Amino acid sequence: MSQFSWKIKKKLKNNNARIGIISTPHGDIETPAFIFCATKAALKSFTTRDAKENKTQIILSNTYHLMLQPGSQIIAKHGGLHKFIGWNGPMLTDSGGFQIFSLGHGSVADEIKGRKSNSNIKKTLLSISEEGAIFKSYIDGANLLLSPEKSIQIQRDLGADFIVVFDECTPFNVDKDYTYNSMQRSHRWSQRSINAFNSNLNYKAKEGSSGTQEIYGIIQGGIYKDMREESIEFNQNNINTFGVAIGGSLGSSKAEMQEIVNFTASKLNNIRPVHLLGIGDPIDIWTFVEQGIDTFDCVSPTRLARHGSALVKGKHGKINLKNKKYNENLNPIDKNCLCYTCRNFTLSYLHHLFASQELLALQLLTNHNIFFMNNLMETIRIAIKENNFENKKNEWLNL
Amino acid sequence: MSQFSWKIKKKLKNNNARIGIISTPHGDIETPAFIFCATKAALKSFTTRDAKENKTQIILSNTYHLMLQPGSQIIAKHGGLHKFIGWNGPMLTDSGGFQIFSLGHGSVADEIKGRKSNSNIKKTLLSISEEGAIFKSYIDGANLLLSPEKSIQIQRDLGADFIVVFDECTPFNVDKDYTYNSMQRSHRWSQRSINAFNSNLNYKAKEGSSGTQEIYGIIQGGIYKDMREESIEFNQNNINTFGVAIGGSLGSSKAEMQEIVNFTASKLNNIRPVHLLGIGDPIDIWTFVEQGIDTFDCVSPTRLARHGSALVKGKHGKINLKNKKYNENLNPIDKNCLCYTCRNFTLSYLHHLFASQELLALQLLTNHNIFFMNNLMETIRIAIKENNFENKKNEWLNL
Repeated sequence: MSQFSWKIKKKLKNNNARIGIISTPHGDIETPAFIFCATKAALKSFTTRDAKENKTQIILSNTYHLMLQPGSQIIAKHGGLHKFIGWNGPMLTDSGGFQIFSLGHGSVADEIKGRKSNSNIKKTLLSISEEGAIFKSYIDGANLLLSPEKSIQIQRDLGADFIVVFDECTPFNVDKDYTYNSMQRSHRWSQRSINAFNSNLNYKAKEGSSGTQEIYGIIQGGIYKDMREESIEFNQNNINTFGVAIGGSLGSSKAEMQEIVNFTASKLNNIRPVHLLGIGDPIDIWTFVEQGIDTFDCVSPTRLARHGSALVKGKHGKINLKNKKYNENLNPIDKNCLCYTCRNFTLSYLHHLFASQELLALQLLTNHNIFFMNNLMETIRIAIKENNFENKKNEWLNL
Repeated sequence: MSQFSWKIKKKLKNNNARIGIISTPHGDIETPAFIFCATKAALKSFTTRDAKENKTQIILSNTYHLMLQPGSQIIAKHGGLHKFIGWNGPMLTDSGGFQIFSLGHGSVADEIKGRKSNSNIKKTLLSISEEGAIFKSYIDGANLLLSPEKSIQIQRDLGADFIVVFDECTPFNVDKDYTYNSMQRSHRWSQRSINAFNSNLNYKAKEGSSGTQEIYGIIQGGIYKDMREESIEFNQNNINTFGVAIGGSLGSSKAEMQEIVNFTASKLNNIRPVHLLGIGDPIDIWTFVEQGIDTFDCVSPTRLARHGSALVKGKHGKINLKNKKYNENLNPIDKNCLCYTCRNFTLSYLHHLFASQELLALQLLTNHNIFFMNNLMETIRIAIKENNFENKKNEWLNL
């Protein structure tokens, strides 16, 4: 019945890096893979057609934004997100939890990545109870409840191939007790999410939509290894999900993040694909693939493009095209890059577009950054396949 | 030697509509044709690749903007505009005059189209003399001279297939004497432009660029028929250009504009293609094709898209996707339109993109509007070919 499957094709011996294939009703994903963010049902400044041309395998949209605008009912009427946004490949939606709690607690995203919290962010989380979270809509100010059952129903309507259990994204700046209680509640919410999902296995938002979905669990526990172990135990034994994501706070430094991810990934057995939430830096990706991560997502490739930054190989990893020094540079971003932007345009032209405030700048640079990330993931897969991981990593990062 | 030619393939008997082919070193243009504006060496929110896919035949860039940013030298270093912007088809540059005088006099563009002048526009024209015009750069405030010789040199560096003589775009709100003196000076500037052009016929900005260009004259005379006749006489007999453009003020109403264009076009013989500057409204295009115009240009298709307006057939000619009534509309902009946007996206989705302030909205709507204009021009050409002009016009405009 299920058109979903996952298999590891090869695993390295000296570390946990692996290549595999995740199959969905909308096609296969070769892993390790990067998932691009079409947050509000649109890649920023970029068509799904061009994303496909740039070898994008899978994209995600955010339940939180879409439940507020245009509302999941309208997307259901289209037959789901795939039809709404003109994307025929694999898709994922998150549960909405991350944004509610991120905006609510202040800035979970900053904390996860060890940045200082930004007190200017408007707090919209009103209350958390066993039932769910009540928050204020940024569209019309209405007070809304998101619960595990409601998140699953919305994700059913959105109709992505992969959906995610509803959890609290616990902030970093709370004590161990808060983190523990939050994890326990997230586990209960996970169980309710799975129950809601299973009670409605053949749900179709609209005749003609596939109605076939699979669900990911989330491993909580913040920076505490004993709690991570408990959450792994819960996710492995108490609930049955297609895949697992490593969520929650990963600490306040890169070293801490690496330790927590490595600890968590190493304890997972090999029966489910593992997703790492919110990581997009190429150096991190090489590191975490080595630790056993299969998929990544982050807004960074498209966000960097909007700020004028082109992704490039090497330790620094990016160059800013707004810099005056590119004014007369007749080279492309990367002579060896095969993307449309690098095959057709010079740094001088791209710099001119930013200097002239032409929106085309964002589109062309997004094109390069998306191609770059997909090329990175392909290079990693080939390196694993050819037992050449360390060499290729060092070559890519110019180490 | 010249790779340029123009021939009329067919002319209607009951009006002046005609189809023809303009050949250039970068390919043929089937006329009547619409020229899209890549003002600052970029179509707004749109790649030249997608423009080509949408059957765009020719685009133009503006000398005024490019001489200020990035400067024509940098474009020359690339081997010209074609290489700079990744467009391998025919191109045109204007002389820079329109913008200098438009910004300088206040708002010539508004006057040409009968709109009220906008006193907020910053006046940057400092002085006009026999030598040329001195204006203030909006980039760095420097005082710069643009003369016929300088305009031609810059247009040589830019390397478009078609370039235009330098003229004063005479405002509407001046008396007949001013208009007459301005026309006389523009004729002298035309002659100097042609001399500069001819003195340097084999100029190549860079080894490898084609170095082959042709030039358009401009017919002046404002709303005064006797002066239009004098300017036609000058353009036909005193100078030798590949084509002619109808420039200057066309009056303050649509009726006046139609009368002046009709009068002018009817006096031109059939040895040169005729361009009408700055007109993009589909109703106007049907009218002016009937009067003998071969090519049009206007920023309207891409500008309308940025304001949320989709071009549609019919007398009103556009719908605004920001309108809440499209919220749940599952139809495309036009069920019969074959563009990428109409084949893949609903009004509901496009409305959502505008409601969410996603830049993709501009790209998808620009796609439709460019396709729409090229489809309009193709429909007109077929109608002329098949002696079906009136029927097709009435059908298109729902008359």
